[in-house]
Amino acid sequence: MSAGEFDLIARIRARVAQREDVVLGIGDDAALVQPPPGRHLVIAMDTLNAGVHFPPETSPADIGWKALAVNLSDLAAMGAEPAWCTLSLSLPHSDPIWLDAFIDGFSELAAQHRVALIGGDTTRGPLSVCVTVHGFVAPDRALRRDAARAGDDLWVTGTLGDAAAALAQWRAAAPGEASSQEPDEAARPLRSRLDRPTPRVSTGLRLVGVAHAAIDVSDGLLADLGHVLRASGVGAELDIDALPASPALLAAFGTDERRVLQSSGGDDYELCFSAPVAVRETLARFSTDSDTPLTRIGRVIADPELRIVDRDGRPWQAGRTGYDHFA
Amino acid sequence: MSAGEFDLIARIRARVAQREDVVLGIGDDAALVQPPPGRHLVIAMDTLNAGVHFPPETSPADIGWKALAVNLSDLAAMGAEPAWCTLSLSLPHSDPIWLDAFIDGFSELAAQHRVALIGGDTTRGPLSVCVTVHGFVAPDRALRRDAARAGDDLWVTGTLGDAAAALAQWRAAAPGEASSQEPDEAARPLRSRLDRPTPRVSTGLRLVGVAHAAIDVSDGLLADLGHVLRASGVGAELDIDALPASPALLAAFGTDERRVLQSSGGDDYELCFSAPVAVRETLARFSTDSDTPLTRIGRVIADPELRIVDRDGRPWQAGRTGYDHFA
Repeated sequence: MSAGEFDLIARIRARVAQREDVVLGIGDDAALVQPPPGRHLVIAMDTLNAGVHFPPETSPADIGWKALAVNLSDLAAMGAEPAWCTLSLSLPHSDPIWLDAFIDGFSELAAQHRVALIGGDTTRGPLSVCVTVHGFVAPDRALRRDAARAGDDLWVTGTLGDAAAALAQWRAAAPGEASSQEPDEAARPLRSRLDRPTPRVSTGLRLVGVAHAAIDVSDGLLADLGHVLRASGVGAELDIDALPASPALLAAFGTDERRVLQSSGGDDYELCFSAPVAVRETLARFSTDSDTPLTRIGRVIADPELRIVDRDGRPWQAGRTGYDHFA
Repeated sequence: MSAGEFDLIARIRARVAQREDVVLGIGDDAALVQPPPGRHLVIAMDTLNAGVHFPPETSPADIGWKALAVNLSDLAAMGAEPAWCTLSLSLPHSDPIWLDAFIDGFSELAAQHRVALIGGDTTRGPLSVCVTVHGFVAPDRALRRDAARAGDDLWVTGTLGDAAAALAQWRAAAPGEASSQEPDEAARPLRSRLDRPTPRVSTGLRLVGVAHAAIDVSDGLLADLGHVLRASGVGAELDIDALPASPALLAAFGTDERRVLQSSGGDDYELCFSAPVAVRETLARFSTDSDTPLTRIGRVIADPELRIVDRDGRPWQAGRTGYDHFA
């Protein structure tokens, strides 16, 4: 089966959500949208390449979901309300069945957050998905990396290390990078964290005016927290054993491995944020009301260094500090 | 030589233009910008893949230029004023010299149009460049594809067929797709049209309120004009011998080949637009004042078909009608 580029575009066009602020969506040289008055626009762009950002055998629906999720996660980390996105899809060959499944996953997540797909392109090339997302935030209310203050608590949403654990399991099981085995039953909860990350959009919106600095955990907690500390000119004390772990992670890995996965593994797309001690109760209430786990993992200090201790207060040394695409 | 992802980002960050409406540029989870009140936002996104959208031996500076140019061309075709862009760059390996040259070409064109690079990402993968551009237009003033009316003249900027001619010469000379020969002296003017297209931004701005429909010629005149005609529910009569040709094209190709290159070759990034007969003098004045060639190539008719004739009024049949990435 094969379909021309214009058919691909038509297939995508028929499947996307509508918004009233979209004046002209897919189908012209560019899209036209009407930004809400008095708000700032928040723009993020992230690419997923096959074999680099997802195992080659990942299902097209999961690739579609993840390509949008990693971008919405960036908006979440700014405390922004998502609105529109554009999608550039490079495919080795035209495949309507693959494309339908891809759009299934993409539009399932887009619908959850009322995100309209307004443009982009489809091209021939190695499998690669580039997405740009647009959202809104009130002026001076965005959660920036440079806003952490000494004395703040450090918090994290959800659990850490699951996606990196799934990747480690996939690598250990794969005879080669082109493996196509399905994850077994025990590995499935971890694998679903790798394939279908949850962007913390509503948490990000809720943190506006409550938290100081925020970032999403895409490259690994220590790497991403490092960005916040450098941008803010502060340091932190972190309790390695306070990092929240899922039951699946606890069952599959011993303490040493788990600590490394949780502190240095990427792809979790949880939010790490700093907030004044005074809002601890507000955050606890929000966590209960919204069914979003929030865990206090340390505190911000004036000294520009990162001190990591275990539950007994002994210094803990990380092996590697996060994922660098060109390391 | 090698540099980490964060160094790449720092190198890019140090080289980009600034704008007062950029609240927060490269360096956080997302960029923050302040859209001007009362205007619509125009958003376009295009990807260039090595070996598909440019010959593999294309210089990094030309790749940087072209990646932005093809996107600015989409804004030009809407009559929009460019403002911000994001860039996602996939590279097989880190190479600071390549990257500096790429940013040279990219920022040379960005500076010409006061475009600020506000975000994006760098990832490992086959060489691919994805750009999203943002611009402004007054409400209901954009040049849309669906606005051509029967009786309009059809116009085109600059010359057609040069980029496709350069590609044909490169294919004829190349022993394989991975060839790295330089174009010879006679081929250079054509090759520079392929490598460094000129986005017709100021022409697009000038056409607002003057032209009816517009599109940029990226897939080939007949394919792109076809989009306008279908969207507008009209047809056209086109004079194949009225299509403007450069001296280099006239010197290198005979009539038959030239007609095909001009009508079906992509990558010229000229504007094709329709305008009422009443503005012919306005357009002639603008062409002289701005040193932008504008050529009348036919007219819009009510019958929804495309009639192509030669200088003697005989029907002319195109072999293929443009570039389809999945044909």
